[in-house]
Amino acid sequence: MITKPILLLDENRCRKNIYDMFLKAKKNKIDFRPHFKTHQSLEISKWYKELGVNKITVSSLEMAEYFAPEWNDITVAFPVNILEIETINQLAKKIQLNVLIESTDTISFLKQNLKFKTGFFVKVDVGYNRTGIDPQNKKEIDTILEISNSCENLIFKGLLAHAGHTYKYQNDEKIKKIHQKGIDILVSLKNKYKEKYPTMIVSLGDTPSCSIADDFQGIDEMRPGNFVFYDLTQHKIGSNQIDQIAVAMACPIVAIHKERNEIVVYGGGVHFSKDRLEDEKLGTIFGRVVEKNETTWGDVIPNMYINSLSQEHGIVSVPKLEIDKYKIGDILYILPVHSCMTANAMKQYITTQNSKIISRL
Amino acid sequence: MITKPILLLDENRCRKNIYDMFLKAKKNKIDFRPHFKTHQSLEISKWYKELGVNKITVSSLEMAEYFAPEWNDITVAFPVNILEIETINQLAKKIQLNVLIESTDTISFLKQNLKFKTGFFVKVDVGYNRTGIDPQNKKEIDTILEISNSCENLIFKGLLAHAGHTYKYQNDEKIKKIHQKGIDILVSLKNKYKEKYPTMIVSLGDTPSCSIADDFQGIDEMRPGNFVFYDLTQHKIGSNQIDQIAVAMACPIVAIHKERNEIVVYGGGVHFSKDRLEDEKLGTIFGRVVEKNETTWGDVIPNMYINSLSQEHGIVSVPKLEIDKYKIGDILYILPVHSCMTANAMKQYITTQNSKIISRL
Repeated sequence: MITKPILLLDENRCRKNIYDMFLKAKKNKIDFRPHFKTHQSLEISKWYKELGVNKITVSSLEMAEYFAPEWNDITVAFPVNILEIETINQLAKKIQLNVLIESTDTISFLKQNLKFKTGFFVKVDVGYNRTGIDPQNKKEIDTILEISNSCENLIFKGLLAHAGHTYKYQNDEKIKKIHQKGIDILVSLKNKYKEKYPTMIVSLGDTPSCSIADDFQGIDEMRPGNFVFYDLTQHKIGSNQIDQIAVAMACPIVAIHKERNEIVVYGGGVHFSKDRLEDEKLGTIFGRVVEKNETTWGDVIPNMYINSLSQEHGIVSVPKLEIDKYKIGDILYILPVHSCMTANAMKQYITTQNSKIISRL
Repeated sequence: MITKPILLLDENRCRKNIYDMFLKAKKNKIDFRPHFKTHQSLEISKWYKELGVNKITVSSLEMAEYFAPEWNDITVAFPVNILEIETINQLAKKIQLNVLIESTDTISFLKQNLKFKTGFFVKVDVGYNRTGIDPQNKKEIDTILEISNSCENLIFKGLLAHAGHTYKYQNDEKIKKIHQKGIDILVSLKNKYKEKYPTMIVSLGDTPSCSIADDFQGIDEMRPGNFVFYDLTQHKIGSNQIDQIAVAMACPIVAIHKERNEIVVYGGGVHFSKDRLEDEKLGTIFGRVVEKNETTWGDVIPNMYINSLSQEHGIVSVPKLEIDKYKIGDILYILPVHSCMTANAMKQYITTQNSKIISRL
């Protein structure tokens, strides 16, 4: 019985999301290295394994340590934090560890301090401008490769990018264009280096691109993550339908204010995170209420959404004609704006189909 | 040695914040029932105990359970979640538990289901419009008290309000005005009921009001919480000076992008939370970098701030003339926008003075 905020997981939807993306990679003949930062769960990771997936992406060494007992090939898609060299060495001893390099300082440090063979990708900035080397700056890439050549523990794996600027758009064509531009940049760079490094690959693929684009020619490996659950942000972008969203918060109603058409739920920033979404019609929202049914949840209830979050409170706007349906002690099911952050805050899942608790890092 | 994001606690500043607020309550002859949702730490709670504080506020039953072994008088400042009646009864058996009531439905439920004596405050809405009864709606208050009168386990403690709308202003006079209006509303209500309930009290006091206001006449008890650490949001409001902020995130530098005057730190939304601050000059910020010194940190470095947060990345804008001072592997100290949410995400503290780990719920 649900008594306080808990994150529901629709296992069927989740497995279907995984299967659909797996098939898309397969159909396009590219390797699938899913990002696990969204679910961060060994149990969910097994649903990938059942399909034959054998390599993964994570966003911290802590996650790599968590998954290492089950996964032997892990890319940490985050610039190397040289202060964690000890953890890097411990992991590289046990598994095929790949790290991201975007500076000569970092590769020089690794050259001096790595004790075991470690793969590395050169991180390329394909326009997101968060991390990565400017693809024009071939001198920096050359220097990195030169430094690595003189260190037998540094194994060049290829070029990696994250086109996070897809998140700014809600238009398939624009997203496909960003995706294609990323491919073009990486393929052009690969052409420059592939003779010397014939096994090098191109790794690309955020959830919007991998969900929306059809053409992956030139990419060797895709790394989407959020698609495992999807969320309202991805829905706004156009990555998924509402009925593909595989997680929902269950929140008890603790107060009802008919005078202002608001319901207060137990479920705040410490549960949802404070990620927000600008909705064209509703303004800033922090979650949308969905219809409940016997085994899971259905469509969103129009105009019923979280309008603000405090530490423990969620304030839900409710249509005037709907509010009489609810009473204190009822549970609302609410789709999160950003499932990665909500899942991170909640630390565990409960499946809708059989009330199984699924733990995570 | 710091190797990944960690929340630093300046114990001296923290103890001074506690002492100053304790003195302010004492000077104004009102009871001090500090809110512990910000620090959520038994160890920090002892710093209050040393001053003679003997009652506290929390925002969930989970926190009440955590503090119950050390604190015998706890108010849960959140509308009663009737689904957790079992926890309420377990707590009420052991300690003086006080809950918040804002509806006849909830008080009726408690009347039927409470097994032990439990204090309750009537939550009054003094203008924040988040929770609480409209003070004009005396009929609702009368009915609640009537229902409670026929239940010996329900002990009416008084009126409680949270003037959270102080957070919208950065002007001492406006905040004092909101504070005074809250007092006026509660005192006027108290006058109506005090003959029948001579021991009833008025409980009020958010961090902005308690930090800025000087006049507390009419209030019997104050419940500020955030002041224990303060943060950039409170600084913008005018509650504190920068040098009163007692927590800072320590984040390793993992990349430097001189071409756009940006540094990437290991420290993202899962560490800071996604709370943001609109700075008049800088726009939206998620934290400000401070100068480091031998034992703690100093003033903010002008124009050096987090401009965006991903799950694990923080992107720091750096003045052109400053950026050459930093190298990969350095640690930046960064003041949080909202210390309650950052502390909640980080789960522990390390003291700057003696590197002591302080745990929390």
